[in-house]
Amino acid sequence: MQPINLKEKFDLINNYWSSMLLGELNNQAVKIAKLKGEFIWHYHENEDEMFFVIEGKLIIKLRDKDTLLKKNEFVVIPRGVEHKPVAKNEVLVMMFEPISTINTRNIENDITIKT
Amino acid sequence: MQPINLKEKFDLINNYWSSMLLGELNNQAVKIAKLKGEFIWHYHENEDEMFFVIEGKLIIKLRDKDTLLKKNEFVVIPRGVEHKPVAKNEVLVMMFEPISTINTRNIENDITIKT
Repeated sequence: MQPINLKEKFDLINNYWSSMLLGELNNQAVKIAKLKGEFIWHYHENEDEMFFVIEGKLIIKLRDKDTLLKKNEFVVIPRGVEHKPVAKNEVLVMMFEPISTINTRNIENDITIKT
Repeated sequence: MQPINLKEKFDLINNYWSSMLLGELNNQAVKIAKLKGEFIWHYHENEDEMFFVIEGKLIIKLRDKDTLLKKNEFVVIPRGVEHKPVAKNEVLVMMFEPISTINTRNIENDITIKT
């Protein structure tokens, strides 16, 4: 039950697109990541995904439009919806997802290694 | 899939300790609230509770210590743990909790009406 300071945790992250687990509650994971550049088109079969921008600007490309997220803004991408995050400059994001699915998100893991 | 701007939503809240639902994902609710003053001692039997401070300073009193949360800091209160939030000045917080339990949190609802 110690307070978690996001800025201090972001300072420990050296790689883009690689998330850090900060906490767990109700079988959900609280994670942060630094994003920069273009991710690939992908979707999550069994989980909704939330991007909450702590610093910077994040574009979430969808097949029919682009969504721009600024500081203190979030969006929920429903399961099954193709999307492609794009960060022209560094973006700090907070994310939530079910704990049970973390180790099966192979698409993200593959990309993390490549970048 | 529209971006949700927290600051704009906070501007719509006129009552302290009354939460506003902003989104849902994976059977979890994303909520915000304005806090000021002292809440009562309480605990949640079946859910962990997350307080993420967007603006201000929040004290979470526990039976054995006080925890101070500042901007960009969060804490997870495990289910069953007694706590008492105290906000000397106005605090803006983001919270997450299971959707299924929202309507059974009678303790919070009672307080919300009284304040």
